[in-house]
Amino acid sequence: MQLAMIDDKVLPLKDLEPAYQDRGLWFGDGVYEVIRSYHGKLFAFEDHMSRFSYSLSQIGLTGVSIEEIRGRVQMAFEKSQLANVRVYFHVTRGSEPRNHLPGKGLRPNFLLTLNELIDHPEDKENGVAVSTYPDWRWKRCDIKSLNLLPNIMARMDAEKKGCYEAIFVNDNQEITEGAGSAYFAIDGEKKELITRPLGNEILPSITRKHVLQIVEGSGLRMVEKALSPEQAKRCSEMFLAVTTKDILPVVKFDGTKVGTGRVGEWTKVLIERFKLLVK
Amino acid sequence: MQLAMIDDKVLPLKDLEPAYQDRGLWFGDGVYEVIRSYHGKLFAFEDHMSRFSYSLSQIGLTGVSIEEIRGRVQMAFEKSQLANVRVYFHVTRGSEPRNHLPGKGLRPNFLLTLNELIDHPEDKENGVAVSTYPDWRWKRCDIKSLNLLPNIMARMDAEKKGCYEAIFVNDNQEITEGAGSAYFAIDGEKKELITRPLGNEILPSITRKHVLQIVEGSGLRMVEKALSPEQAKRCSEMFLAVTTKDILPVVKFDGTKVGTGRVGEWTKVLIERFKLLVK
Repeated sequence: MQLAMIDDKVLPLKDLEPAYQDRGLWFGDGVYEVIRSYHGKLFAFEDHMSRFSYSLSQIGLTGVSIEEIRGRVQMAFEKSQLANVRVYFHVTRGSEPRNHLPGKGLRPNFLLTLNELIDHPEDKENGVAVSTYPDWRWKRCDIKSLNLLPNIMARMDAEKKGCYEAIFVNDNQEITEGAGSAYFAIDGEKKELITRPLGNEILPSITRKHVLQIVEGSGLRMVEKALSPEQAKRCSEMFLAVTTKDILPVVKFDGTKVGTGRVGEWTKVLIERFKLLVK
Repeated sequence: MQLAMIDDKVLPLKDLEPAYQDRGLWFGDGVYEVIRSYHGKLFAFEDHMSRFSYSLSQIGLTGVSIEEIRGRVQMAFEKSQLANVRVYFHVTRGSEPRNHLPGKGLRPNFLLTLNELIDHPEDKENGVAVSTYPDWRWKRCDIKSLNLLPNIMARMDAEKKGCYEAIFVNDNQEITEGAGSAYFAIDGEKKELITRPLGNEILPSITRKHVLQIVEGSGLRMVEKALSPEQAKRCSEMFLAVTTKDILPVVKFDGTKVGTGRVGEWTKVLIERFKLLVK
Protein backbone atom coordinates (compact mmCIF):
# COMPACT_ATOMS: atom_id res chain seq x y z
CA MET A 1 0.00 0.00 0.00
CA GLN A 2 1.24 3.48 -0.92
CA LEU A 3 0.70 5.67 2.10
CA ALA A 4 1.23 8.98 3.78
CA MET A 5 1.60 10.21 7.35
CA ILE A 6 0.71 13.60 8.75
CA ASP A 7 2.30 13.69 12.18
CA ASP A 8 1.07 10.39 13.69
CA LYS A 9 -1.85 9.89 11.35
CA VAL A 10 -1.43 7.26 8.63
CA LEU A 11 -3.58 7.50 5.48
CA PRO A 12 -3.61 6.07 1.96
CA LEU A 13 -1.41 8.24 -0.28
CA LYS A 14 -4.35 8.87 -2.61
CA ASP A 15 -6.22 10.56 0.25
CA LEU A 16 -3.46 13.08 0.93
CA GLU A 17 -4.99 16.49 0.26
CA PRO A 18 -3.59 18.78 -2.46
CA ALA A 19 -2.46 21.34 0.16
CA TYR A 20 0.06 18.76 1.42
CA GLN A 21 1.21 17.98 -2.09
CA ASP A 22 1.92 21.55 -3.14
CA ARG A 23 5.18 21.92 -5.05
CA GLY A 24 5.55 25.08 -2.98
CA LEU A 25 5.89 22.80 0.04
CA TRP A 26 7.95 20.03 -1.59
CA PHE A 27 10.43 22.38 -3.27
CA GLY A 28 9.56 26.05 -2.68
CA ASP A 29 8.57 25.90 -6.35
CA GLY A 30 6.77 29.23 -6.56
CA VAL A 31 7.09 33.01 -6.45
CA TYR A 32 5.39 35.72 -4.40
CA GLU A 33 4.74 39.42 -3.87
CA VAL A 34 3.89 41.68 -0.96
CA ILE A 35 1.94 44.84 -1.73
CA ARG A 36 0.67 47.48 0.68
CA SER A 37 -1.99 50.14 0.54
CA TYR A 38 -1.79 53.67 1.91
CA HIS A 39 -5.00 55.52 2.72
CA GLY A 40 -7.23 53.13 0.80
CA LYS A 41 -5.08 52.82 -2.32
CA LEU A 42 -2.73 49.98 -3.32
CA PHE A 43 0.73 51.48 -3.72
CA ALA A 44 2.82 50.74 -6.84
CA PHE A 45 0.43 47.96 -7.79
CA GLU A 46 1.65 47.75 -11.38
CA ASP A 47 5.31 47.70 -10.33
CA HIS A 48 4.58 44.70 -8.13
CA MET A 49 2.58 42.90 -10.81
CA SER A 50 5.30 43.48 -13.34
CA ARG A 51 7.98 42.12 -10.95
CA PHE A 52 5.71 39.16 -10.28
CA SER A 53 5.49 38.43 -14.03
CA TYR A 54 9.26 38.58 -14.20
CA SER A 55 9.63 36.09 -11.32
CA LEU A 56 7.15 33.69 -12.95
CA SER A 57 8.94 33.85 -16.29
CA GLN A 58 12.37 33.31 -14.74
CA ILE A 59 11.35 30.04 -13.12
CA GLY A 60 9.37 28.94 -16.19
CA LEU A 61 6.05 28.90 -14.36
CA THR A 62 3.39 29.11 -17.03
CA GLY A 63 -0.41 28.96 -17.14
CA VAL A 64 -0.89 31.98 -14.88
CA SER A 65 -3.08 34.92 -15.89
CA ILE A 66 -1.64 38.14 -14.48
CA GLU A 67 -4.95 39.79 -15.30
CA GLU A 68 -6.78 37.28 -13.12
CA ILE A 69 -4.37 37.73 -10.22
CA ARG A 70 -4.63 41.50 -10.49
CA GLY A 71 -8.40 41.07 -10.19
CA ARG A 72 -8.11 38.79 -7.17
CA VAL A 73 -5.82 41.21 -5.32
CA GLN A 74 -8.17 44.07 -6.08
CA MET A 75 -11.19 42.05 -4.98
CA ALA A 76 -9.59 40.98 -1.71
CA PHE A 77 -8.56 44.57 -1.01
CA GLU A 78 -12.07 45.87 -1.65
CA LYS A 79 -13.69 43.14 0.43
CA SER A 80 -11.43 43.94 3.37
CA GLN A 81 -12.76 47.52 3.57
CA LEU A 82 -9.48 48.50 5.20
CA ALA A 83 -7.37 51.55 4.32
CA ASN A 84 -3.91 50.27 5.22
CA VAL A 85 -3.27 46.64 4.42
CA ARG A 86 -0.49 44.26 3.54
CA VAL A 87 -1.41 41.84 0.75
CA TYR A 88 0.76 38.76 0.39
CA PHE A 89 0.21 36.36 -2.48
CA HIS A 90 2.06 33.51 -4.07
CA VAL A 91 1.67 31.18 -7.01
CA THR A 92 3.19 27.72 -6.94
CA ARG A 93 3.56 25.33 -9.85
CA GLY A 94 0.70 23.19 -8.51
CA SER A 95 -0.06 20.11 -6.41
CA GLU A 96 1.00 16.59 -7.29
CA PRO A 97 2.93 13.65 -5.81
CA ARG A 98 6.52 14.67 -5.13
CA ASN A 99 8.67 14.50 -8.24
CA HIS A 100 11.33 17.04 -9.23
CA LEU A 101 10.10 17.23 -12.80
CA PRO A 102 6.69 18.93 -12.87
CA GLY A 103 3.86 16.92 -14.42
CA LYS A 104 2.27 18.07 -17.68
CA GLY A 105 -0.87 20.16 -17.45
CA LEU A 106 -0.36 20.98 -13.78
CA ARG A 107 -2.64 23.75 -12.50
CA PRO A 108 -0.80 26.49 -10.55
CA ASN A 109 -1.98 27.19 -6.99
CA PHE A 110 -2.78 30.71 -5.82
CA LEU A 111 -2.78 31.76 -2.16
CA LEU A 112 -3.36 35.26 -0.79
CA THR A 113 -3.48 36.67 2.71
CA LEU A 114 -4.48 40.18 3.66
CA ASN A 115 -3.79 41.84 7.02
CA GLU A 116 -4.45 45.26 8.37
CA LEU A 117 -1.18 47.15 8.62
CA ILE A 118 -0.62 48.90 11.93
CA ASP A 119 2.01 51.59 11.64
CA HIS A 120 4.72 51.77 14.31
CA PRO A 121 5.78 55.43 14.27
CA GLU A 122 8.27 54.72 17.10
CA ASP A 123 10.39 52.63 14.67
CA LYS A 124 10.76 55.63 12.38
CA GLU A 125 11.41 57.96 15.34
CA ASN A 126 13.92 55.79 17.18
CA GLY A 127 15.39 53.71 14.38
CA VAL A 128 16.32 50.05 14.58
CA ALA A 129 19.45 47.95 15.12
CA VAL A 130 20.80 45.57 12.45
CA SER A 131 23.46 42.86 12.41
CA THR A 132 25.34 41.25 9.54
CA TYR A 133 25.02 37.65 8.41
CA PRO A 134 26.77 35.69 5.61
CA ASP A 135 24.85 35.89 2.35
CA TRP A 136 24.26 32.18 1.76
CA ARG A 137 21.40 32.73 -0.66
CA TRP A 138 21.24 31.40 -4.18
CA LYS A 139 22.56 33.26 -7.21
CA ARG A 140 19.18 34.47 -8.48
CA CYS A 141 18.00 36.79 -5.73
CA ASP A 142 16.43 38.94 -8.44
CA ILE A 143 13.65 36.30 -8.47
CA LYS A 144 11.19 36.70 -5.58
CA SER A 145 10.91 32.98 -4.86
CA LEU A 146 9.60 30.89 -1.97
CA ASN A 147 13.14 29.62 -1.26
CA LEU A 148 13.67 31.81 1.80
CA LEU A 149 15.41 29.56 4.30
CA PRO A 150 18.68 31.58 4.33
CA ASN A 151 16.61 34.71 4.99
CA ILE A 152 14.92 32.97 7.91
CA MET A 153 18.24 31.80 9.33
CA ALA A 154 19.63 35.33 9.04
CA ARG A 155 16.59 36.85 10.72
CA MET A 156 16.75 34.31 13.57
CA ASP A 157 20.39 35.20 14.08
CA ALA A 158 19.54 38.91 14.13
CA GLU A 159 16.84 38.33 16.72
CA LYS A 160 19.30 36.49 18.97
CA LYS A 161 21.51 39.58 18.78
CA GLY A 162 18.57 41.81 19.68
CA CYS A 163 18.42 43.21 16.16
CA TYR A 164 15.45 44.01 13.96
CA GLU A 165 16.98 42.98 10.64
CA ALA A 166 19.92 41.01 9.25
CA ILE A 167 22.14 42.56 6.57
CA PHE A 168 23.66 40.07 4.16
CA VAL A 169 27.40 40.25 3.48
CA ASN A 170 28.74 38.18 0.59
CA ASP A 171 32.08 36.39 0.11
CA ASN A 172 33.61 39.57 -1.32
CA GLN A 173 32.85 41.33 1.96
CA GLU A 174 30.18 43.43 0.30
CA ILE A 175 26.76 44.23 1.68
CA THR A 176 24.08 42.95 -0.69
CA GLU A 177 20.77 43.76 1.04
CA GLY A 178 18.70 43.03 4.13
CA ALA A 179 17.05 39.64 4.76
CA GLY A 180 13.72 41.30 3.99
CA SER A 181 14.63 44.82 2.89
CA ALA A 182 16.84 46.94 0.65
CA TYR A 183 19.84 48.60 2.27
CA PHE A 184 20.90 52.27 1.99
CA ALA A 185 23.70 54.31 3.55
CA ILE A 186 24.27 58.05 3.51
CA ASP A 187 27.60 59.81 3.44
CA GLY A 188 26.54 63.14 4.92
CA GLU A 189 29.79 64.92 4.08
CA LYS A 190 29.71 64.02 0.41
CA LYS A 191 25.91 64.25 0.38
CA GLU A 192 25.73 60.80 -1.18
CA LEU A 193 22.96 58.24 -0.86
CA ILE A 194 24.59 54.87 -1.48
CA THR A 195 22.96 51.59 -2.46
CA ARG A 196 24.02 48.50 -4.33
CA PRO A 197 23.36 48.48 -8.10
CA LEU A 198 20.67 46.05 -9.26
CA GLY A 199 21.81 42.61 -10.35
CA ASN A 200 21.23 38.92 -9.68
CA GLU A 201 22.43 39.31 -6.08
CA ILE A 202 19.55 41.49 -4.91
CA LEU A 203 15.83 41.85 -5.37
CA PRO A 204 14.75 44.74 -7.60
CA SER A 205 13.03 46.41 -4.65
CA ILE A 206 10.02 48.54 -5.53
CA THR A 207 10.59 50.75 -2.48
CA ARG A 208 14.21 51.20 -3.62
CA LYS A 209 12.88 52.45 -6.97
CA HIS A 210 10.72 55.01 -5.19
CA VAL A 211 13.58 56.10 -2.93
CA LEU A 212 15.61 56.76 -6.07
CA GLN A 213 12.69 58.88 -7.27
CA ILE A 214 12.34 61.01 -4.13
CA VAL A 215 16.06 61.57 -3.77
CA GLU A 216 15.85 63.78 -6.87
CA GLY A 217 15.87 67.36 -5.67
CA SER A 218 16.47 66.38 -2.03
CA GLY A 219 20.04 67.65 -2.04
CA LEU A 220 21.47 64.13 -1.96
CA ARG A 221 23.19 62.51 -4.92
CA MET A 222 22.46 58.88 -5.72
CA VAL A 223 25.52 56.61 -5.94
CA GLU A 224 25.05 52.95 -6.85
CA LYS A 225 27.97 50.94 -5.51
CA ALA A 226 28.73 48.10 -3.13
CA LEU A 227 29.85 48.87 0.42
CA SER A 228 31.80 46.69 2.83
CA PRO A 229 30.56 46.55 6.43
CA GLU A 230 33.60 48.65 7.41
CA GLN A 231 32.76 51.31 4.83
CA ALA A 232 29.13 51.23 5.91
CA LYS A 233 30.12 51.84 9.54
CA ARG A 234 31.86 55.05 8.51
CA CYS A 235 28.67 56.38 6.91
CA SER A 236 26.71 59.00 8.84
CA GLU A 237 23.26 57.49 8.27
CA MET A 238 21.65 54.23 7.18
CA PHE A 239 18.19 53.01 6.47
CA LEU A 240 16.22 50.04 5.19
CA ALA A 241 13.60 50.23 2.45
CA VAL A 242 10.75 47.75 2.64
CA THR A 243 7.26 47.69 1.18
CA THR A 244 5.37 47.47 4.46
CA LYS A 245 7.36 50.20 6.24
CA ASP A 246 8.90 52.22 3.39
CA ILE A 247 11.92 53.96 5.00
CA LEU A 248 13.14 52.57 8.31
CA PRO A 249 16.15 54.32 9.90
CA VAL A 250 19.04 52.21 11.21
CA VAL A 251 20.82 53.55 14.28
CA LYS A 252 23.00 50.59 15.20
CA PHE A 253 25.05 48.34 12.91
CA ASP A 254 26.72 45.25 14.38
CA GLY A 255 26.68 46.89 17.79
CA THR A 256 28.24 50.15 16.55
CA LYS A 257 26.33 53.43 16.64
CA VAL A 258 25.49 54.76 13.20
CA GLY A 259 26.50 58.46 13.10
CA THR A 260 25.22 60.03 16.29
CA GLY A 261 23.23 56.91 17.15
CA ARG A 262 19.99 58.77 16.45
CA VAL A 263 17.88 59.01 13.32
CA GLY A 264 19.82 61.15 10.83
CA GLU A 265 18.64 64.41 9.30
CA TRP A 266 18.84 63.24 5.69
CA THR A 267 16.85 60.13 6.55
CA LYS A 268 14.16 62.34 8.07
CA VAL A 269 14.06 64.38 4.86
CA LEU A 270 13.56 61.24 2.80
CA ILE A 271 10.86 59.91 5.15
CA GLU A 272 8.97 63.19 4.70
CA ARG A 273 9.36 63.06 0.94
CA PHE A 274 8.11 59.47 0.89
CA LYS A 275 5.02 60.54 2.85
CA LEU A 276 4.18 63.03 0.11
CA LEU A 277 4.59 60.31 -2.51
CA VAL A 278 1.98 58.04 -0.92
CA LYS A 279 -0.42 60.74 0.23
CA MET B 1 -11.55 42.13 7.86
CA GLN B 2 -8.35 40.08 7.64
CA LEU B 3 -8.83 37.54 4.89
CA ALA B 4 -7.34 34.88 2.69
CA MET B 5 -7.95 33.59 -0.81
CA ILE B 6 -7.31 30.10 -2.15
CA ASP B 7 -7.62 30.44 -5.91
CA ASP B 8 -10.95 32.28 -6.26
CA LYS B 9 -12.31 31.41 -2.82
CA VAL B 10 -12.28 34.19 -0.23
CA LEU B 11 -12.34 33.23 3.47
CA PRO B 12 -11.62 34.87 6.81
CA LEU B 13 -7.90 34.60 7.56
CA LYS B 14 -8.65 32.78 10.82
CA ASP B 15 -10.27 29.96 8.83
CA LEU B 16 -7.21 29.32 6.69
CA GLU B 17 -6.14 25.75 7.48
CA PRO B 18 -2.69 25.02 8.97
CA ALA B 19 -1.62 23.16 5.80
CA TYR B 20 -1.77 26.50 3.94
CA GLN B 21 0.13 28.26 6.70
CA ASP B 22 3.05 25.87 6.83
CA ARG B 23 6.42 27.61 7.07
CA GLY B 24 7.52 24.92 4.63
CA LEU B 25 5.20 26.56 2.11
CA TRP B 26 5.87 30.21 3.07
CA PHE B 27 9.65 29.86 3.16
CA GLY B 28 10.79 26.27 2.51
CA ASP B 29 11.59 26.37 6.22
CA GLY B 30 12.22 22.66 6.73
CA VAL B 31 14.47 19.71 5.96
CA TYR B 32 13.86 16.26 4.50
CA GLU B 33 15.20 12.79 3.80
CA VAL B 34 14.58 10.05 1.25
CA ILE B 35 15.24 6.47 2.36
CA ARG B 36 14.76 3.29 0.39
CA SER B 37 14.37 -0.36 1.30
CA TYR B 38 15.87 -3.33 -0.50
CA HIS B 39 14.24 -6.71 -0.09
CA GLY B 40 12.15 -5.73 2.91
CA LYS B 41 14.87 -3.85 4.81
CA LEU B 42 15.42 -0.10 5.07
CA PHE B 43 18.90 0.64 3.73
CA ALA B 44 21.33 2.81 5.71
CA PHE B 45 18.50 3.94 7.98
CA GLU B 46 20.81 5.26 10.69
CA ASP B 47 22.94 7.17 8.17
CA HIS B 48 19.82 8.94 6.93
CA MET B 49 18.57 9.69 10.44
CA SER B 50 21.92 11.07 11.43
CA ARG B 51 22.06 13.32 8.34
CA PHE B 52 18.53 14.43 9.13
CA SER B 53 19.59 15.42 12.67
CA TYR B 54 22.43 17.40 11.17
CA SER B 55 20.09 19.25 8.79
CA LEU B 56 17.71 20.09 11.64
CA SER B 57 20.52 21.40 13.82
CA GLN B 58 22.01 23.52 11.02
CA ILE B 59 18.77 25.43 10.48
CA GLY B 60 18.09 25.68 14.21
CA LEU B 61 14.88 23.63 14.02
CA THR B 62 14.25 22.36 17.53
CA GLY B 63 11.51 20.42 19.29
CA VAL B 64 11.84 17.35 17.07
CA SER B 65 12.33 13.87 18.52
CA ILE B 66 14.52 11.80 16.19
CA GLU B 67 13.40 8.74 18.13
CA GLU B 68 9.78 9.50 17.33
CA ILE B 69 10.52 10.05 13.63
CA ARG B 70 12.50 6.83 13.45
CA GLY B 71 9.43 5.08 14.88
CA ARG B 72 7.09 6.71 12.38
CA VAL B 73 9.26 5.73 9.40
CA GLN B 74 9.47 2.17 10.71
CA MET B 75 5.73 2.02 11.31
CA ALA B 76 4.88 3.34 7.83
CA PHE B 77 7.28 0.85 6.28
CA GLU B 78 5.76 -2.07 8.18
CA LYS B 79 2.20 -0.99 7.41
CA SER B 80 2.99 -0.83 3.70
CA GLN B 81 3.93 -4.53 3.60
CA LEU B 82 6.11 -3.75 0.59
CA ALA B 83 9.67 -4.96 0.05
CA ASN B 84 11.06 -2.13 -2.08
CA VAL B 85 9.88 1.31 -1.13
CA ARG B 86 10.91 4.91 -1.22
CA VAL B 87 10.15 6.77 2.00
CA TYR B 88 10.16 10.56 1.81
CA PHE B 89 9.68 12.62 4.94
CA HIS B 90 10.14 16.21 5.95
CA VAL B 91 9.83 18.31 9.05
CA THR B 92 8.99 21.99 8.81
CA ARG B 93 9.19 24.57 11.59
CA GLY B 94 5.40 24.58 11.92
CA SER B 95 2.26 26.39 10.79
CA GLU B 96 1.46 30.01 11.61
CA PRO B 97 0.59 33.27 9.86
CA ARG B 98 3.44 34.32 7.58
CA ASN B 99 6.22 36.08 9.44
CA HIS B 100 9.94 35.59 8.83
CA LEU B 101 10.70 35.26 12.51
CA PRO B 102 9.22 31.99 13.81
CA GLY B 103 6.77 32.29 16.70
CA LYS B 104 7.64 30.95 20.12
CA GLY B 105 6.45 27.45 20.99
CA LEU B 106 5.69 26.55 17.38
CA ARG B 107 5.04 22.83 16.84
CA PRO B 108 7.02 21.31 13.93
CA ASN B 109 5.02 19.60 11.16
CA PHE B 110 5.87 16.08 9.98
CA LEU B 111 4.88 14.73 6.59
CA LEU B 112 5.80 11.35 5.12
CA THR B 113 4.96 9.63 1.85
CA LEU B 114 5.77 6.05 0.96
CA ASN B 115 5.73 4.61 -2.57
CA GLU B 116 6.55 1.24 -3.96
CA LEU B 117 9.84 1.45 -5.85
CA ILE B 118 9.76 -0.12 -9.28
CA ASP B 119 13.24 -0.86 -10.54
CA HIS B 120 14.11 0.11 -14.10
CA PRO B 121 16.90 -2.32 -15.05
CA GLU B 122 17.08 -0.77 -18.52
CA ASP B 123 18.48 2.45 -16.98
CA LYS B 124 21.38 0.49 -15.51
CA GLU B 125 21.87 -1.48 -18.75
CA ASN B 126 21.68 1.44 -21.18
CA GLY B 127 22.80 4.33 -19.03
CA VAL B 128 21.38 7.83 -19.10
CA ALA B 129 22.23 11.21 -20.64
CA VAL B 130 23.02 14.28 -18.53
CA SER B 131 23.46 17.98 -19.26
CA THR B 132 25.16 20.75 -17.30
CA TYR B 133 23.44 23.70 -15.65
CA PRO B 134 24.82 26.65 -13.65
CA ASP B 135 24.98 25.90 -9.94
CA TRP B 136 22.76 28.70 -8.66
CA ARG B 137 22.06 27.01 -5.34
CA TRP B 138 22.72 28.50 -1.94
CA LYS B 139 26.00 28.13 -0.08
CA ARG B 140 24.80 25.44 2.35
CA CYS B 141 24.04 22.49 0.08
CA ASP B 142 25.27 20.24 2.89
CA ILE B 143 21.85 20.90 4.46
CA LYS B 144 19.06 18.81 2.90
CA SER B 145 16.51 21.62 2.90
CA LEU B 146 13.17 22.23 1.19
CA ASN B 147 14.70 25.11 -0.81
CA LEU B 148 14.96 23.18 -4.06
CA LEU B 149 13.89 25.64 -6.73
CA PRO B 150 17.32 25.78 -8.45
CA ASN B 151 17.28 21.97 -8.57
CA ILE B 152 13.86 22.05 -10.21
CA MET B 153 14.97 24.66 -12.75
CA ALA B 154 18.04 22.56 -13.58
CA ARG B 155 15.96 19.39 -13.97
CA MET B 156 13.46 21.18 -16.23
CA ASP B 157 16.33 22.38 -18.39
CA ALA B 158 17.74 18.83 -18.58
CA GLU B 159 14.36 17.47 -19.64
CA LYS B 160 14.16 20.04 -22.44
CA LYS B 161 17.51 18.73 -23.66
CA GLY B 162 16.24 15.15 -23.49
CA CYS B 163 18.42 14.41 -20.46
CA TYR B 164 17.68 12.42 -17.34
CA GLU B 165 19.64 14.57 -14.90
CA ALA B 166 21.28 18.01 -14.66
CA ILE B 167 24.88 18.32 -13.46
CA PHE B 168 25.63 21.53 -11.62
CA VAL B 169 28.70 23.54 -12.64
CA ASN B 170 29.77 26.38 -10.35
CA ASP B 171 31.37 29.76 -11.12
CA ASN B 172 34.84 28.20 -10.94
CA GLN B 173 33.84 25.88 -13.79
CA GLU B 174 33.80 22.90 -11.45
CA ILE B 175 31.21 20.17 -11.33
CA THR B 176 29.61 20.08 -7.88
CA GLU B 177 26.94 17.35 -8.09
CA GLY B 178 23.72 16.38 -9.85
CA ALA B 179 20.41 18.17 -9.24
CA GLY B 180 19.27 15.07 -7.35
CA SER B 181 22.33 12.83 -7.24
CA ALA B 182 26.05 12.62 -6.49
CA TYR B 183 28.42 12.67 -9.47
CA PHE B 184 31.30 10.27 -10.17
CA ALA B 185 33.75 9.92 -13.06
CA ILE B 186 36.23 7.15 -13.77
CA ASP B 187 39.64 7.56 -15.38
CA GLY B 188 40.08 4.04 -16.72
CA GLU B 189 43.74 4.48 -17.62
CA LYS B 190 44.76 5.68 -14.17
CA LYS B 191 42.19 3.40 -12.54
CA GLU B 192 40.81 6.36 -10.60
CA LEU B 193 37.30 6.89 -9.34
CA ILE B 194 36.88 10.65 -9.03
CA THR B 195 34.32 12.59 -7.00
CA ARG B 196 34.19 15.98 -5.37
CA PRO B 197 35.31 16.15 -1.72
CA LEU B 198 32.56 16.82 0.81
CA GLY B 199 31.96 20.45 1.75
CA ASN B 200 29.24 23.06 1.93
CA GLU B 201 28.75 22.91 -1.86
CA ILE B 202 27.38 19.36 -1.95
CA LEU B 203 25.11 17.08 0.01
CA PRO B 204 26.89 14.43 2.07
CA SER B 205 25.30 11.69 -0.05
CA ILE B 206 24.70 8.40 1.75
CA THR B 207 25.02 6.47 -1.53
CA ARG B 208 28.35 8.26 -2.13
CA LYS B 209 29.52 6.97 1.25
CA HIS B 210 28.63 3.42 0.25
CA VAL B 211 30.29 3.78 -3.15
CA LEU B 212 33.46 4.79 -1.33
CA GLN B 213 33.06 1.62 0.72
CA ILE B 214 32.63 -0.79 -2.22
CA VAL B 215 35.45 0.77 -4.21
CA GLU B 216 37.87 -0.73 -1.66
CA GLY B 217 39.31 -3.84 -3.23
CA SER B 218 37.64 -3.21 -6.60
CA GLY B 219 40.89 -2.30 -8.31
CA LEU B 220 39.95 1.38 -8.51
CA ARG B 221 41.56 4.07 -6.40
CA MET B 222 39.39 6.77 -4.87
CA VAL B 223 40.41 10.35 -5.69
CA GLU B 224 38.46 13.22 -4.17
CA LYS B 225 38.86 16.29 -6.34
CA ALA B 226 36.81 18.74 -8.41
CA LEU B 227 36.51 18.22 -12.17
CA SER B 228 35.68 20.76 -14.85
CA PRO B 229 33.15 19.68 -17.50
CA GLU B 230 36.07 19.49 -19.97
CA GLN B 231 38.04 17.19 -17.69
CA ALA B 232 34.93 15.11 -17.09
CA LYS B 233 34.41 14.66 -20.83
CA ARG B 234 37.87 13.12 -21.09
CA CYS B 235 37.01 10.46 -18.48
CA SER B 236 36.19 6.98 -19.72
CA GLU B 237 33.14 6.40 -17.52
CA MET B 238 30.67 8.34 -15.41
CA PHE B 239 27.83 7.54 -13.10
CA LEU B 240 25.34 9.09 -10.70
CA ALA B 241 24.76 7.88 -7.16
CA VAL B 242 21.29 8.32 -5.74
CA THR B 243 19.38 6.65 -2.93
CA THR B 244 16.49 5.35 -5.01
CA LYS B 245 18.65 3.94 -7.84
CA ASP B 246 22.08 3.51 -6.23
CA ILE B 247 24.50 3.53 -9.22
CA LEU B 248 23.19 4.88 -12.49
CA PRO B 249 25.61 4.86 -15.46
CA VAL B 250 25.96 8.02 -17.58
CA VAL B 251 26.63 7.46 -21.27
CA LYS B 252 26.17 10.97 -22.62
CA PHE B 253 27.40 14.27 -21.14
CA ASP B 254 26.26 17.54 -22.75
CA GLY B 255 25.66 15.70 -26.01
CA THR B 256 29.10 14.04 -26.02
CA LYS B 257 29.50 10.25 -25.73
CA VAL B 258 31.12 9.19 -22.48
CA GLY B 259 33.91 6.72 -23.35
CA THR B 260 32.49 4.25 -25.85
CA GLY B 261 28.99 5.62 -25.33
CA ARG B 262 28.00 2.42 -23.57
CA VAL B 263 27.96 1.49 -19.89
CA GLY B 264 31.59 1.14 -18.80
CA GLU B 265 33.21 -1.99 -17.38
CA TRP B 266 34.27 -0.41 -14.10
CA THR B 267 30.78 0.93 -13.58
CA LYS B 268 29.41 -2.59 -14.06
CA VAL B 269 31.83 -3.87 -11.44
CA LEU B 270 30.64 -1.26 -8.95
CA ILE B 271 26.98 -1.99 -9.70
CA GLU B 272 27.60 -5.66 -8.93
CA ARG B 273 29.44 -4.81 -5.73
CA PHE B 274 26.60 -2.53 -4.66
CA LYS B 275 24.13 -5.38 -5.20
CA LEU B 276 26.06 -7.52 -2.73
CA LEU B 277 26.00 -4.68 -0.22
CA VAL B 278 22.20 -4.45 -0.20
CA LYS B 279 21.47 -8.16 -0.50
